[in-house]
This record gives sequence, structure tokens and C-alpha cells, in this order.
Amino acid sequence: MRAEIITIGDELCRGEIVNTNASWLAAALWDQQVTVTHMHSCLDIAEDMAQLVREAADRSDLVLLSGGLGPTSDDLTVDMLADLVGAEPVVHEPSAENMRTRFAAAGIALVPNSERQVRAPAGARVYENSTGLAPGFEVSHGDASVIALPGPPRELKAIFADHLVERISELRLARGEKLEHVARRIFRVFGKGESQVATALEGLALGDGASLHYQVKFPETLVKIVVRRDAQEAANAELSKIDADVRERLGWLVYGTDDDSMAKALVRELERLGHTIATAESCTGGMISALLTDVSGVSKSFPGGAVTYSNEEKMRQLGVSEETLKAHGAVSEEVVREMADGVRERMGADWGVAVSGIAGPGGGTKEKPVGTVWIGVAGPSGIRKTKMYCWPWTRERVRALAAHWALNLVRQQLGKL
Amino acid sequence: MRAEIITIGDELCRGEIVNTNASWLAAALWDQQVTVTHMHSCLDIAEDMAQLVREAADRSDLVLLSGGLGPTSDDLTVDMLADLVGAEPVVHEPSAENMRTRFAAAGIALVPNSERQVRAPAGARVYENSTGLAPGFEVSHGDASVIALPGPPRELKAIFADHLVERISELRLARGEKLEHVARRIFRVFGKGESQVATALEGLALGDGASLHYQVKFPETLVKIVVRRDAQEAANAELSKIDADVRERLGWLVYGTDDDSMAKALVRELERLGHTIATAESCTGGMISALLTDVSGVSKSFPGGAVTYSNEEKMRQLGVSEETLKAHGAVSEEVVREMADGVRERMGADWGVAVSGIAGPGGGTKEKPVGTVWIGVAGPSGIRKTKMYCWPWTRERVRALAAHWALNLVRQQLGKL
Repeated sequence: MRAEIITIGDELCRGEIVNTNASWLAAALWDQQVTVTHMHSCLDIAEDMAQLVREAADRSDLVLLSGGLGPTSDDLTVDMLADLVGAEPVVHEPSAENMRTRFAAAGIALVPNSERQVRAPAGARVYENSTGLAPGFEVSHGDASVIALPGPPRELKAIFADHLVERISELRLARGEKLEHVARRIFRVFGKGESQVATALEGLALGDGASLHYQVKFPETLVKIVVRRDAQEAANAELSKIDADVRERLGWLVYGTDDDSMAKALVRELERLGHTIATAESCTGGMISALLTDVSGVSKSFPGGAVTYSNEEKMRQLGVSEETLKAHGAVSEEVVREMADGVRERMGADWGVAVSGIAGPGGGTKEKPVGTVWIGVAGPSGIRKTKMYCWPWTRERVRALAAHWALNLVRQQLGKL
Repeated sequence: MRAEIITIGDELCRGEIVNTNASWLAAALWDQQVTVTHMHSCLDIAEDMAQLVREAADRSDLVLLSGGLGPTSDDLTVDMLADLVGAEPVVHEPSAENMRTRFAAAGIALVPNSERQVRAPAGARVYENSTGLAPGFEVSHGDASVIALPGPPRELKAIFADHLVERISELRLARGEKLEHVARRIFRVFGKGESQVATALEGLALGDGASLHYQVKFPETLVKIVVRRDAQEAANAELSKIDADVRERLGWLVYGTDDDSMAKALVRELERLGHTIATAESCTGGMISALLTDVSGVSKSFPGGAVTYSNEEKMRQLGVSEETLKAHGAVSEEVVREMADGVRERMGADWGVAVSGIAGPGGGTKEKPVGTVWIGVAGPSGIRKTKMYCWPWTRERVRALAAHWALNLVRQQLGKL
């Protein structure tokens, strides 16, 4: 099955918003084995919209539109498609009732325009909107199904999940396509670049119907495996074979799967061991603790952290000695070691992690150029680990890498317990 | 002048990446008074690419392509366009020389494929790439100019800035269009929603050739003013008139312009006064200090911060009293006041700012539901300010709002000095 996506709106063509709807729909269709061959955007001009729909319907089996279903005079999708299929736009009563209920609950009065957004071409298959007002709907043009969806991403996603996953399977079956069962996993990989990850996975045994894709999502790499089989058990079994192979090849580089984050993976490990961690940050300035506290329920594992941007605060909050600072400078192995020890002891945590570096753009020297970062980890049973990095990137990237490497080094040490 | 944008690549049509190139180019063209009527994406299939280019060139005056200029066999743009205009693909010698120099410096050997990426159709106008290997180029098809650009965003932007801004003006002049002088400003607005900002700006006097747009960039709203005039002085004068009106209507809601961030604006104010600030964070867990340290050169104004997730750390690091915690709970006016005072005194800063809240999803009660956040500010001359918020949003949004409101409250207090 071949599909095209048409997203409508002046704000897209003026570059005011990035088209996340198109990429979301493309990924959702790809997941259902539908090949998206083209994606288009146009202004809120009915003729342009209709021309794109006609051309797409001639080329493809399925056309998904988004946008132009609101209540204002700029919203032309219902009338344009009604015109295209020679039907009248009519109010969809269940959606109108839903609107009246919502408006009454919020104390908002209906205005004459309100009804515009709960219409569909007469005879269309209507898809109710569980999170908003405008319903989606489907009409036929030639041999193609043309499906219109509202522009707000939340509503578009809800209608897709509630109705279109099933409807697309139905359309594919009707076309004589074989519906396969899918098993998928995203491996979240940190610590090596995409090309090194790809090299490590070269020659990975992927049977028929299994595919592998890479996506760089700085600072990590996502490895996506999709397996399609006639039966779900077969797909799952094949995926778990591939899973084992991926993990053997990538080892500790794989920190998690699917929706994991590095912080989530680390907090999970800390919880499993009943351990706590405290942070001491200079150049990352609170990014590590912000990543950790992004994980809900982290309070069991994280008492707090110290952000010590000045040398005075490194001494006062963490007990770093003035001599060490003078002898080695704030960005040094000795200082991050004292920072990690200090924060661990003072906060009574099992683990302390510390970062000091030169994020730039200023502050570099010949010996310690911009991008130099020291990370220190102190743990139970006398664990001590320090490491230096030097990244030739921007301030933003150096800080993000430093924060992620700090979490990753703790994860590595935890893995050795 | 009417333009269309064609972005090429399987990864776009599979939804693996969001199409930021298209929106960037659309905004850049809109800035030059070029109306983008359509944007298209397609797979790496030469026929599909050629069909889109032909159709776009028939409809429009300018077609911008991006992608498909790399060295691999998937990269088809040069051959496709050479074929379309009936020319041979030829190596562009200055670009080849640039590639050899870069490869030699990095110690990379040239392979036979390498030359693929420094070619252009014979007779094309070539645009050198100052940040990468593949040059851009321009060919004519019918009355339209067709310009190909590499896919990596940095290279696309560099070629646009280095060559196309001027080239597009030239093309517009050749078409008899009047080149107007442009003055523009983005007002960065925080503290009210888009609809309230729009209401405040209703009836703003915008002369002919001036336009206003809104963009929501959570948690702030951007108000963009563009003025076009025959002379630069006239455009500037009109913009400064509008500027005064916008500021009068929005007042302190405008925290900065153009590339400002809330943290940058605050740091600028602190620097002007020679003041310092220290942070005490519970539910934001380091986000405020991370925002502050995102500003390069902040070390003069920011000694450090305390991340006190546990009650013990609130007492130990900030001197919050156990009685206060027991009597009022950690999320309370009394506690953020003690936190702000404590961090200010202990770090010897002019300002202390503190946040304690319930970011969710767990931890809410009937009296203090999820989304409840207290912010406290302590400043010189006995300044004390506390404020409570309750946001019915996700953990992520509550934390982001809390961090921005904390900075904003300090900015407000600074403004009163």
C-alpha cells in the first residue's frame, strides 16, 4: 500500500512551525507497512489543496490530510473535499453534541462559526475525536481513500490510534495484502558514534522480514529493529534472538530500550540496589541533577546536589582544598575526585559524581583547551573512577555530553558491583 | 516571486527525522518576500524527484531542493537534474580541491565514490560550500530557477547565507520586483498566554508593509514584527515606533528580543548592577542553575546553587528549620522563604531564588495538588517575594514553568531597584 501525506497551513509554508505532524504520520504508516512516497504542504488555498489531493489520489492508495478542520474561514478542508467528491458538507451530530457538552462544561457560548468544525462531507466515514472538537473523516476519490485529520498533534494522534490503525489494516486486507505481526524494539546506545555502532552491528543476522535502522538523537544513537512474521510468537522469538545478538555485540553501550533515558536507566539500577547518588557540578551547572529529577519517583535515590560554579563554593560546599585548586586548577583530576568524595560524604549518599570542565567559548588554555572536561565518580567499597574528555564542540554540546557521560560512568561502575 | 521547496530522502518519508530544513528554508524565503506555496518530500527515487521538480518549476519561479548530494549511490540529485536539463554531470574543480585539502588534513584517503559529491550539471551556476564538501548549484528549467542544496542543515544554511540571499534579490530584481528594505524584531514574551498577548496587542498601529506574527515556543510567546520600506531608514524608524508601542502595551512581559533567553536577560541585568545570584532548588532539581549556566560568562554573576531534593538537604545545605518543615510541609511559602534566605546568605550572593513544588505525577494531596509550586526570592535591601502557582500540566511542563517563573520573578524584583 502506498500513501501520501498532505499537511495544510500558511504557518507551515512560512516556516513558523516545524512539520511534526507529517513525520509522526509517516512513522505511524511505516509501522503499518505502508510506504509513504510523498509528503506535501500547501497554503490555505482550496484550489491548491484540491490539486494536491487529486494528484496524490491518482498516484497512491491512501491520502492522509491534516489541518484546515477548524471553525474559521481559513479552514477549508471539509468544503474542499466535499466539493471534490460531489457531496454537501453536513454537521456530524455526535461531534456537534460532543462540542455542545464541552462548551457547556467550560461555560463557553456557541457562536455561528462553531458548527463549521463538526462537519464532514455527506456520506463520509466519520472518525470521532476523543480529545477535541473536529472529527476526522474518510472519503473516496477514484480508487484511493482520502482521510482528513485535525491539525493539533494531540487530536491527530488520538484519532489515528482510536480509528486508523484498524482502518488501515482493513484497507490493506481489502487490497489482498498480507497483514503481518510485528515485534519491534529500540535499543538506546550511548558512548560511541553512529558509524562505530554500525560497524559493530555489521553482518547482524536479520532474517527475512526483519529490518534495522539507525537514528542519531544527540548525544545518543537509536538502533531500531522491526521484525514482521505471520504469527506474533514467531516475530517475538526472532526479535529476542536479534536482541541477544545486538546486546552481545554492543555490550554496555546499550543502556536501555524504547522510552528509556540514561537517567531512567541509572535510577532503575540505583533502586534495584537500594543506593543513592549525589551530584557535584561545575560546568554542567545542574544539568545532571536536572536529568535525574526528570525521572518521577527519583526522591528515593537522590537526596540532592551541589552546583559549585566558583572555587569558593567548591571549597565551602564540597570541602575541596584550596591547595588542590591552586596546584592543579579547578578543571583537574584531583579536584573532581575531591568534589565526588565531598558530595558523597556530606550528603550521605552511596555514590557521588562530579564534573568540572571548560565548556567555552572562553576560558581555554593551551594545556586545557575549551572542551576539556574531568568527571569523577566515588562509590561504595572504595570505588574511585576519574576520566578526562576533550570535545571540540559548542558549549551546549560539551555540557550535554559531560552530563550524559557523568551518568554513564556511574552506570558503568554500578554494573561492576 | 513564488517558490516551492523539495526535500529528498527515505528518512523523511519514514518519519525518522523531522523536516527542519523545509521550515528553515521557508522562513528564510518568507524573510525575503518570497511566498512559498508548496513544500514536498519524496523518497530517493530519481523519477519521483524529477516529476516533483518539473511540476514545481511549471507552477513557480524558484524551486529549492535539499538532499541527495552525498557520495553514495542513493544520492541522485546531481544526475537527476543534469538529466532534466540535458547536461552532463561534471566535477566542480574548486570543490574537488577543497575536498582533497580537507581529506588530507584529516588523513582520510579519497575513494572512487568521493568525487560524486563534488559534481554539478555542466553549465550550472555553482555555490561553494564553506562548511562541508558538496557544493550547491543552480540550473534553469523553463522560466524557473532550480537550486540544489546539501541536506546537512549546517551546510544548507551556510550556502544560503553565503550565496542565496544575494542571488534571490538578483532574481527578484530581474523579474521587476521591488526590493524593499526590511527591519525586523522578535519580542520574547513570558508570563501570559498567546491569546492574552494577542488581546493586548489588538489594534496595534501597523502601517502598510508592516506585519505581526505570533509563535508559541513553550513556555514563552514570540511576537515577530517585520517592516518593509523603500529605504532602510524608513523601515528602522517605523520599527522603532512599533517597538515603543509594543513595549508600552506588554510592559514587563517583554523580557528581551531576538536571540535572548530569559536567563540571558536576567544575567545581563545582574551584570549591569554587579549583582550575584544563588539558587536553591527542590522540584526543578537543577534546571534553574542549568539555564543560568547556559549563558557563557555567567561565572561573574553565579557562584553556585543547592539542589535539595530531600528535607534533610534543605536543612543541611540551606538551614531550613525542622519546625518549619513539620508545620508547613516542604511545599510552602515558609519553606521557600527560608530556602531563598539560606542560599543567599550561605553563598554570599545578592539574590537567592528558591523553588519547592509537586511536579507529579505522584505526591499530590487535596490541599496541595500536583502542579503546586512555591517560589521565593530574597534580595538586597530586605527584598522578599514569594508566589504560589498551580499548573494542571505534566511533570515536564510544571518543572519548565517553575524554572522560568523563578528567573522571571527575580527579573521583576531587579526591575524595581
